[in-house]
Amino acid sequence: MATAPSVSYSMTVRLEVPASGTAVSQLTTAVESSGGSVTGLDVTASGHEKLRIDVTVAATSTAHADEIVEKLSSIEGVTLGKVSDRTFLMHLGGKIEMASKHPIRNRDDLSMVYTPGVARVCLAIAENPEDARRLTIKRNSVAVVTDGSAVLGLGNIGPKAALPVMEGKAALFKRFAGIDAWPICLDTQDTDAIVEIVKAIAPGFAGINLEDISAPRCFEIEARLREALDIPVFHDDQHGTAIVVLASLTNALRVVGKSIGDVRVVMSGAGAAGTAILKLLIAAGVKHAVVADIHGVVHAGRADLAAVDGGANGSALHWIAENTNPEGVTGTLKEAVAGADVFIGVSAPNVLDGEDVAAMADDAIVFALANPDPEVDPAVARQTAAVVATGRSDFPNQINNVLVFPGVFRGLLDAQSRTVNTDMMLAAAKALADVVTEDELNRNYIIPSVFNDKVAGAVAGAVREAAKAAGPAVTGATAR
Amino acid sequence: MATAPSVSYSMTVRLEVPASGTAVSQLTTAVESSGGSVTGLDVTASGHEKLRIDVTVAATSTAHADEIVEKLSSIEGVTLGKVSDRTFLMHLGGKIEMASKHPIRNRDDLSMVYTPGVARVCLAIAENPEDARRLTIKRNSVAVVTDGSAVLGLGNIGPKAALPVMEGKAALFKRFAGIDAWPICLDTQDTDAIVEIVKAIAPGFAGINLEDISAPRCFEIEARLREALDIPVFHDDQHGTAIVVLASLTNALRVVGKSIGDVRVVMSGAGAAGTAILKLLIAAGVKHAVVADIHGVVHAGRADLAAVDGGANGSALHWIAENTNPEGVTGTLKEAVAGADVFIGVSAPNVLDGEDVAAMADDAIVFALANPDPEVDPAVARQTAAVVATGRSDFPNQINNVLVFPGVFRGLLDAQSRTVNTDMMLAAAKALADVVTEDELNRNYIIPSVFNDKVAGAVAGAVREAAKAAGPAVTGATAR
Repeated sequence: MATAPSVSYSMTVRLEVPASGTAVSQLTTAVESSGGSVTGLDVTASGHEKLRIDVTVAATSTAHADEIVEKLSSIEGVTLGKVSDRTFLMHLGGKIEMASKHPIRNRDDLSMVYTPGVARVCLAIAENPEDARRLTIKRNSVAVVTDGSAVLGLGNIGPKAALPVMEGKAALFKRFAGIDAWPICLDTQDTDAIVEIVKAIAPGFAGINLEDISAPRCFEIEARLREALDIPVFHDDQHGTAIVVLASLTNALRVVGKSIGDVRVVMSGAGAAGTAILKLLIAAGVKHAVVADIHGVVHAGRADLAAVDGGANGSALHWIAENTNPEGVTGTLKEAVAGADVFIGVSAPNVLDGEDVAAMADDAIVFALANPDPEVDPAVARQTAAVVATGRSDFPNQINNVLVFPGVFRGLLDAQSRTVNTDMMLAAAKALADVVTEDELNRNYIIPSVFNDKVAGAVAGAVREAAKAAGPAVTGATAR
Repeated sequence: MATAPSVSYSMTVRLEVPASGTAVSQLTTAVESSGGSVTGLDVTASGHEKLRIDVTVAATSTAHADEIVEKLSSIEGVTLGKVSDRTFLMHLGGKIEMASKHPIRNRDDLSMVYTPGVARVCLAIAENPEDARRLTIKRNSVAVVTDGSAVLGLGNIGPKAALPVMEGKAALFKRFAGIDAWPICLDTQDTDAIVEIVKAIAPGFAGINLEDISAPRCFEIEARLREALDIPVFHDDQHGTAIVVLASLTNALRVVGKSIGDVRVVMSGAGAAGTAILKLLIAAGVKHAVVADIHGVVHAGRADLAAVDGGANGSALHWIAENTNPEGVTGTLKEAVAGADVFIGVSAPNVLDGEDVAAMADDAIVFALANPDPEVDPAVARQTAAVVATGRSDFPNQINNVLVFPGVFRGLLDAQSRTVNTDMMLAAAKALADVVTEDELNRNYIIPSVFNDKVAGAVAGAVREAAKAAGPAVTGATAR
């Protein structure tokens, strides 16, 4: 599978080049012949003899970037200067900051923002705690909480190394939904400790977004926090993924003219995302689902149902066995996929090939979401499947959580919801699917772009209404 | 003690007033005859018959504000509209927000700020954790942590009601030192739990500012966190106060020409602030100190030394008894103050009167820091004392922590300090005192204004140099 040069492997290379001769024209050629692409070329200093040129180049990987630099510096007469990695430059000093909403210009400002004026505001909240939603940042604040145990596809890299992801998430919350999120990266991976910590920090936030916490601990942490807290707790890796997959599947089924209650769905992956997707699909009406993990199809007779991961993931597998595979299919993923209408992969690269996809039912739907390398090469899958989607931005139909979590939290916060439930998630998925109009819908456009400015508002509105429909037990604070 | 109208009790009153007649001119008179002051008067709508006027008024208290509104609405022909409290208006929706440093305009931006580009940054930090100081918000972030147990002078009002203070603190961190602080309001007042929580959230921050946590728990929490963490932990109520008091005393002694090693200091208050002030004064050279609490002078023979508050505050009292009062003075605060050179009050209103101050030594120094009502009326104290300072903004010589904590943390963060020690605090106090030049120094100007733009930089520079002087054990990360 060829990978296109990406700005996420983008660097700016400073070069000194003879003013006369052909060196300048050779720069672009050198980059392109190496498979990179020139995205910018600035002469930053010029003299009679020498030019200083900053060439910005997109590569496909770090090794590829090194190779391009090598090629540039080997052009005759060219001297290599500083090489700046654009992604790293963007991260210097972090990506987010705290900003004050009011200028503090003089003693009058100070006496309202801080002492003594602030004391009256504190007393008002002490008398009526619900006023915290009116008079503090709580109403619009979300904690992005991780323990660094399952960061992207990188594994257990710890809380400090997870911070760039959490900062990025916070930036996206603001960009797409105007939400003030702050990263909380925890130096513990103990389930009890994480539950106690998140409970304790909750007063200052109106929502908790759990992020990149490994299964099976994430299930218990989320369940216990939902039980304990009066603000919504949302594990994006589970529920954000489930919502965007359901929305995408809804539209893919519209494209092929099949009904959600009839299709046979085969899923690869029984981790956090897989389990959450499965539960939401079943809530949405899927009746025929089969799940496979690394040991093959999950069925009631499998010996490892209660044993894996000390029982906790076993109980997730147990749930899967009880709620899927009514025919008691056994065997491998490849065997299960034969004849299926829908394949959803949230597992590992290249578990299927073109023949497996060709053996699916007519008008098959393939969601190969492993990142960066999907379960099956999407270009190959498209040869026989009707609709193919991936998690990648360089193919059509990118299934991306960014479509979901900003709008979901916007809706929860606007409704002052105390929780997030399946009805709200189903509403979010439907609203997201409906952003794609009948005129726009086709096999290469089942899901809108993350930059479609209708998305967050549509999702937020649907979640807000679903929360309000749940009544005062869910939105207990709506009096204000 | 008369209190001047303050913007912290400021409101805007909307009135409908007849266009002809004398009602308009009566508005200002009504406010002023009630002891308020008009700070703004805007005609926001005008017709032949009626004017709509928004009058902004400063009062001295909530009751006083109500009184003024009553008086305004009783003017003949005036109809009262909406009354808006300016301080509450400023707090609507909270005072701070999260901001993204980079625009996210398109897929290229997204792929660098978030996935897939962010993964390379995460991996770099996983390989070298110190890179978190370079590539994340950690380097400039401070957690403002409270349990809401001792908020301002309001007592144990809990974490939600404390949030407006913590937001204000965060805003001041940014305004005066460019630091990104975020409030963490804890729903627990258990010492062990607070220690564990702050340890766990530390990876995302370069410093911890403990705030408004009651004594004696604050001593243990701070001590255990300093022991456990590799970032500085600073309890502003203790150490911020101690630093600004030492700076003020340094300059007050310059005014009266006395030496810190010679003066007799009497302190009222043995809580968190009092204990911290005492320790720093002793470190700065004070040799003759006597402390009184509500039970009178602390001396080695007092029966309650180990008993108060289950022993923990008892141990603070014990420390005081061992390190002060070498002559073994007993009796009341008033008795101890007679003949003293310096009085420092961090306790309760009106514990001294004019006669007590008159009985002090010549050229007495009086710091009456209880807020809003000082230990002695400063106007009365000034009749006999050479230098008088308070915590209030409506008298000369306001002793305000805002002069200290932004610069201290700026210095700690710039030095990437792992701790904050007495040398750094002494350096901060000296730098703050030195901002007042010999030409500026007099009995009414011993300490600069919080808006003096030299303050934070001077304090930061001194703390940074003191941290660096402590060597690599303290600033272990300075290689980057």
